[in-house]
Amino acid sequence: MAQGRRIPEATVSRLPLYLRALGEAASVTETISSEELAARAGVNAAQVRKDLSYLGSYGTRGVGYEVSYLVRQINRRLGLDVELRVAIVGAGNLGQALARYGGFPARGFHVVAAFDSDPSKVGSVVGSTVVEPAALMLSVLRDKGVDIAVITTPAPSAQGVADTLVDAGVGCILNFAPTTVSVPPSVALRQVDLGIELQILSFYRQRTLAATAGA
Amino acid sequence: MAQGRRIPEATVSRLPLYLRALGEAASVTETISSEELAARAGVNAAQVRKDLSYLGSYGTRGVGYEVSYLVRQINRRLGLDVELRVAIVGAGNLGQALARYGGFPARGFHVVAAFDSDPSKVGSVVGSTVVEPAALMLSVLRDKGVDIAVITTPAPSAQGVADTLVDAGVGCILNFAPTTVSVPPSVALRQVDLGIELQILSFYRQRTLAATAGA
Repeated sequence: MAQGRRIPEATVSRLPLYLRALGEAASVTETISSEELAARAGVNAAQVRKDLSYLGSYGTRGVGYEVSYLVRQINRRLGLDVELRVAIVGAGNLGQALARYGGFPARGFHVVAAFDSDPSKVGSVVGSTVVEPAALMLSVLRDKGVDIAVITTPAPSAQGVADTLVDAGVGCILNFAPTTVSVPPSVALRQVDLGIELQILSFYRQRTLAATAGA
Repeated sequence: MAQGRRIPEATVSRLPLYLRALGEAASVTETISSEELAARAGVNAAQVRKDLSYLGSYGTRGVGYEVSYLVRQINRRLGLDVELRVAIVGAGNLGQALARYGGFPARGFHVVAAFDSDPSKVGSVVGSTVVEPAALMLSVLRDKGVDIAVITTPAPSAQGVADTLVDAGVGCILNFAPTTVSVPPSVALRQVDLGIELQILSFYRQRTLAATAGA
């Protein structure tokens, strides 16, 4: 498979933003300039052109990029041209929110399994799947062929869950538990800590306040 | 206020990870090496030393960093040495998950207001606050003096909510709605799209699969 130039991590993080912006633009236009795409995605136009050049996409002077072609190109590079099967481990508030998150099916993500260790949650419906006991995780995951698992348990359970996911052959883990988990290098892992997002925001708030005070 | 060297964005994003790792380490040790901090935070030791040098912290050779001092230093640079008042707009699954998120109070974030436009949700309790009608947002926000607002509405409502938040003088917005919102440059804004996290993960999954296939 031709992979083209290796895409920098920061570019990978922006490709989904372009995809979302292109999806919003698709109802009103067939082509889009780097300036308009930049404005919709909240970045600058030079960045858009540079990022898209990694896909081999350069647009046409005076016309811009063809929206539907660019969407297909980004989807292919992100591996979104196939349906991905998602399991949610931890059916608390956050797990339920994710299982019902409207943006998932539209992007090719299908929640096919959910687990919880709390017997009172087992059997309840989240999204379009039924919560199964955490103790059955290994066998259910192997049966269902899950591509991506999302950890939404409390912090103390997260590493044990990650270990089980790796044992079950899940190659891709998104961890929302507020702790760092370790997995072998062959497993793709992203960690999202919602508290951390607030802390980062707090830094920029403080900087804005300092700039205002100094003005 | 002495701000020291300007901290790069990537470093800012890692400081909360160090804070979390230090919090976990604090119960077992008073000093920590860059190697141990790196392992706990999931980055490499050279990165830790470089990041902390932006705070003017260099540790002591053979001893490392003093945990409690480093925690105070990072907290101060992130603006977390004061209590921050948070409002949640949109009391659906995600809003409720955030309002109840255990990691918030421990980090100085207090959810003091929640809003929804759905009359059936108004009056219900999320976390330790009562959901108020979205129509009252402007006056309630002004009364309560909110530092940070979190948008957890569906995408079509997000820009209108952001506009109201800006009108109410909220200086800091965390947007979880799956669309890009615009605010004046004086307002600190972070956008987190949970679907995008899955898309980024999908890219790395594909790369791992390609590497395995090529091995």
